[in-house]
Amino acid sequence: MPELRRDPVIGRWVIISTDRSKRPSDFSKETGNHVGKDCPFCAGNEKLTPPEILSYREPGTRKDQEGWWVRVVPNKYPALAVEGTLNRTGEGMYDKMNGIGAHEVIIESPDHDKEIHELNDKQVEDIIWVFRDRILDLRKDSRFEYILIFKNRGAAAGATLAHPHAQLIATPIVPKRVREEVNGAKSYYDYKERCVFCDIIKQELSENRRIVAENSDFVAIVPFAARFPFEIWVLPKKHDSDFVDIQKHETTSLASMMKNSLGRLNRVLNNPPYNYIIHNAPLREPHLAHYHWHIEIMPAITKVAGFERGTGFYINPTAPEEAAKFLRESE
Amino acid sequence: MPELRRDPVIGRWVIISTDRSKRPSDFSKETGNHVGKDCPFCAGNEKLTPPEILSYREPGTRKDQEGWWVRVVPNKYPALAVEGTLNRTGEGMYDKMNGIGAHEVIIESPDHDKEIHELNDKQVEDIIWVFRDRILDLRKDSRFEYILIFKNRGAAAGATLAHPHAQLIATPIVPKRVREEVNGAKSYYDYKERCVFCDIIKQELSENRRIVAENSDFVAIVPFAARFPFEIWVLPKKHDSDFVDIQKHETTSLASMMKNSLGRLNRVLNNPPYNYIIHNAPLREPHLAHYHWHIEIMPAITKVAGFERGTGFYINPTAPEEAAKFLRESE
Repeated sequence: MPELRRDPVIGRWVIISTDRSKRPSDFSKETGNHVGKDCPFCAGNEKLTPPEILSYREPGTRKDQEGWWVRVVPNKYPALAVEGTLNRTGEGMYDKMNGIGAHEVIIESPDHDKEIHELNDKQVEDIIWVFRDRILDLRKDSRFEYILIFKNRGAAAGATLAHPHAQLIATPIVPKRVREEVNGAKSYYDYKERCVFCDIIKQELSENRRIVAENSDFVAIVPFAARFPFEIWVLPKKHDSDFVDIQKHETTSLASMMKNSLGRLNRVLNNPPYNYIIHNAPLREPHLAHYHWHIEIMPAITKVAGFERGTGFYINPTAPEEAAKFLRESE
Repeated sequence: MPELRRDPVIGRWVIISTDRSKRPSDFSKETGNHVGKDCPFCAGNEKLTPPEILSYREPGTRKDQEGWWVRVVPNKYPALAVEGTLNRTGEGMYDKMNGIGAHEVIIESPDHDKEIHELNDKQVEDIIWVFRDRILDLRKDSRFEYILIFKNRGAAAGATLAHPHAQLIATPIVPKRVREEVNGAKSYYDYKERCVFCDIIKQELSENRRIVAENSDFVAIVPFAARFPFEIWVLPKKHDSDFVDIQKHETTSLASMMKNSLGRLNRVLNNPPYNYIIHNAPLREPHLAHYHWHIEIMPAITKVAGFERGTGFYINPTAPEEAAKFLRESE
């Protein structure tokens, strides 16, 4: 079973694979870009994945067979194990717990080559509904404190398979950066009695210098202190701390805004590798006045990863106003 | 002039290049691996860099000419500007300051191909003395609050030039992760009345499961909650919060330990890209009982950068005990 270990200085929890530990020679192997009959995420190859957890599929078609348009399967090489009880122990001065959690793959469509911005609106909307369905199901499990939904697109962004997919990790702790973000937002709220994200949206709409796109329910901006060139945040205009509360018409708007934003990013940067992460409130903290769920899209086009990973000190070579202009003007 | 901007939620400062802003097409250009007469860091090419700030050189040789063995020059494309006064301003709800700082390059030797572990002991010792000399000089400048010394080795770790070099960035703020580390260490001290790093060293030496190498003054370990496979921390055995207090005999030991650790890393992982960072106390906080300077070496062999950069949630596929065993047993 994997282990969660806590850094005794910073307090950051790290997932450590102790079973199938990677040896030095494992790192030089290139991960293959499976296509056609090799790709475990393509329609017809359902047997190449573990049995599906959920799928949206044509009536009359059977589980783990063709006929689906969005499909969720367990990650074949999960970072955390779903079976077992949570057990915290010490090891001298150190703290650890067994690596309980869930690690799932959301296959965005049966089509190997279509990225989000190339899918039809309904398909993207259904991907969003699947995200929500999985959170609703997993949050019933009292061992879990947080659910991270994210996408790695391209090898430089950490993807090992090319077929478009997102991932979900349910964790027994609230990750440190999530806690930091929620606490930061709370400090602002305690001082101003306003949500910091609502204030950001208001200032951005009024200044109109970093807006990428806007519709009735969502706004996409390049944030004022963007860490990465062409970073984009997609924010719901209505205050809500929990993604799960999204309404039907908002799902339609979000699908359209994600297609719009990622389409612009792909045109401007010529299909860059990127990650997006849904920033959501911790599972056991409902209806926060100070927190505001949103999605952060981070292109992986700069290579200063290690230094910045180590220090949290980012150098962004593209002014957010310039990036927003390029994105906004891209047709 | 570059700008420092503060994220209003997290409080993280980011350096934004506003002058020479990178356009979308700039990111696809590959950075060349200059060699021979093209390399600005090779002996004989001193005119290809800005005038040198410091060099250790043969008596009788002249500034910006051959004859040096360690050489410090301003970064040709600095992240921060050294001229100007510090000026903090608001922009609505946002906070920023002008990007005052220093950005220098420490050329480790005139030899284009020799990595640290291949240099002789005296040469590595002199690189360490140069680091110290530059901190002593720059900390006189009251605009600076922190000095980061780090190395990017290999393109995947952010290096744009192959000739071995380290870098130095002096900043007008204490970076958030540094503050977090110092505060974390202080919490431990407040509770235990002991330095957390001293306790780590004690437990590691007693357990002997994650030791990579040890000499009279330094110990190299794979940390208990390592974020990256084969991550190594080099810690001075004697408690001191400030790298600048290093004594003569300790410099000799550190040079030997860096050669030893990096040699093992290079053998085990076949010359991997990596970063190292000197973790030192903030400039204006001398003699801290709770902080302990050290060096963190982070191989850049995993590609999950974006997701982990965004969340601070690390998945390490190699158990630290396994990594330490491979490193320790490498001859």
